[in-house]
Amino acid sequence: MMQEHGDHAHPGVNLPPEAAARILVTGAWIDESLLSPLRDLGYAPRRPSSPFLSEDALISELRGAVAYLHGGEERATPRALRAVRETLRVVAFLGVGYENFVDVAAADELSIVVTNTAGAATDSVASFTVGQIINANWRIPQGLGNRLPDWRGPHDLPHELSARRVGIIGLGAIGARIADILTRSFGADVAYFSRTRRHDVEEALGLRFLPLHELAERSDILVVMVPETEKTRAMVDAGVLARMRPGAVLVNTARPAIVDPAALHASMRKGEVHLAVFDGYYGPDCEMGRRLLDDFGDRLLVTGHVASHTQEATARMVRQAVRSIANVLTAGGDEHAVGLTRRARR
Amino acid sequence: MMQEHGDHAHPGVNLPPEAAARILVTGAWIDESLLSPLRDLGYAPRRPSSPFLSEDALISELRGAVAYLHGGEERATPRALRAVRETLRVVAFLGVGYENFVDVAAADELSIVVTNTAGAATDSVASFTVGQIINANWRIPQGLGNRLPDWRGPHDLPHELSARRVGIIGLGAIGARIADILTRSFGADVAYFSRTRRHDVEEALGLRFLPLHELAERSDILVVMVPETEKTRAMVDAGVLARMRPGAVLVNTARPAIVDPAALHASMRKGEVHLAVFDGYYGPDCEMGRRLLDDFGDRLLVTGHVASHTQEATARMVRQAVRSIANVLTAGGDEHAVGLTRRARR
Repeated sequence: MMQEHGDHAHPGVNLPPEAAARILVTGAWIDESLLSPLRDLGYAPRRPSSPFLSEDALISELRGAVAYLHGGEERATPRALRAVRETLRVVAFLGVGYENFVDVAAADELSIVVTNTAGAATDSVASFTVGQIINANWRIPQGLGNRLPDWRGPHDLPHELSARRVGIIGLGAIGARIADILTRSFGADVAYFSRTRRHDVEEALGLRFLPLHELAERSDILVVMVPETEKTRAMVDAGVLARMRPGAVLVNTARPAIVDPAALHASMRKGEVHLAVFDGYYGPDCEMGRRLLDDFGDRLLVTGHVASHTQEATARMVRQAVRSIANVLTAGGDEHAVGLTRRARR
Repeated sequence: MMQEHGDHAHPGVNLPPEAAARILVTGAWIDESLLSPLRDLGYAPRRPSSPFLSEDALISELRGAVAYLHGGEERATPRALRAVRETLRVVAFLGVGYENFVDVAAADELSIVVTNTAGAATDSVASFTVGQIINANWRIPQGLGNRLPDWRGPHDLPHELSARRVGIIGLGAIGARIADILTRSFGADVAYFSRTRRHDVEEALGLRFLPLHELAERSDILVVMVPETEKTRAMVDAGVLARMRPGAVLVNTARPAIVDPAALHASMRKGEVHLAVFDGYYGPDCEMGRRLLDDFGDRLLVTGHVASHTQEATARMVRQAVRSIANVLTAGGDEHAVGLTRRARR
């Protein structure tokens, strides 16, 4: 914990060189009161004039800011970061998967520290994902509004989760939490694939580690929970999807781009993946994302990247981001830095 | 366990007096192979000609049957039971809440044994209910299809379940299982009301027992899980609902009639109950049930009594009902009898 850097009791100790230097804060849902530690340190947090920022609007909002708390949907592009390189020292991204929102390579080049809020939303994302697994397994959204069941025979009924084989791709904090809930509370048979083996979790929960293709082959429900990086983008590709059992469910509450949309389209056409869950969907410029919705809309459960956004998780995220900003501005660095630049310019 | 009465190894031992006496089996989703123990005992299980049986159709289907495995949506009325009193010795209801489907008082008068399949669907109903709690809490069904979140501010976000107070009405096997999942896996703060105090469960899970009105008053999410009886019908009435917190969620995955529909309508109008979940809804002849759907359809999550109907739970239920029928026909009684008549006529 580096909380002492943001200590409210000594507001003047670490005052920045500029009086009331500005900090841009995007994300309309952020509670103003959570920003007071920044005010106490002498900074002026400032909201943008519009919730949706184009690149030019972002540049104009960032002008003169020493820090940028990114909680909106806008993209901190290389051009935007370059335009404010003289003043900007830190971008604190609210959430884990910053890849589509902050160009960390550009920030590194400009020696701007980028932080994220890993860990703050573990419980929220895991709970939401388990809810969507139950939804997909029981086809609850499809059945809403029916007063009577419409099964045609015994094989049309859903299975209990205790009779389902679940595969989890990625056993970080969230993946491990999902595995914990599914095994302990629902008796599901869970296996996983992860770049890093987690022998501790395997032993505690009785999980099996499998290579990715074998995991796809054995899973009735395949859960995607890896961060988006160069290496994980389209990691769930045609080769993985071709291994899936006919009628299987794909649950992607990580970033959409982990799943190759063209491969998913082919798989849903063949009936391998019967139902797919996304929390956060391919951008409007993704042609194949549109075709998936057009052709298989009734077999997609899409929500707008909401899993991590509970009041408790967002408050935790904002507090953590505020601490990161304070740490970088006052002490030069922060433990939650994600890029190569881990110390701010002085 | 009374499994020995249905022992496949000695099919001839307990043959009934009539050769190949008929057994009516309703419920299109029942797997034929699960009925073979009855065939092995020399009985002839028989499916109805139509999945939806009027009272007259039911009487005609029941004619000559010694047993009736009730897995459909038809009602075994006093008139229907009286019409076949000469031959019918047992009605095995598939499920727990038989009250709307089998007139047990009439069966008692006619000395027909009625059994149910309590316990067989505990995991399925508990899992489904937890799924609907997550749905209601995150408003997932309302958000499906939105590519971006549409919150207006921080107070519009859902809460984590670890920050929710859940009240459970009824701490039988299913209620206790729901409490177990919510406390252990989701860290919810759970209290309960039950006719019978369960000190063992209270201690194991750290639950608090509260009188019904106080439970309603403290709960963000109120879960109904009692069987329907004379005493529980409309148990959640205007007095209970008036205590609920504005914006609260009511989750009724037990029988609809436990909740007074007129009181619920008034409560939803005032905004006390913001969202209500039903698995199985008021009959089409319930005027207030229709008005609820008309006026607050977007705040109701209604499914067609599907929670208990997984392949595993129904197989367990059918096996248990088949054993109960065999027990009554061959030994005269069964441990799962629910009425006053616990021994069949000889």
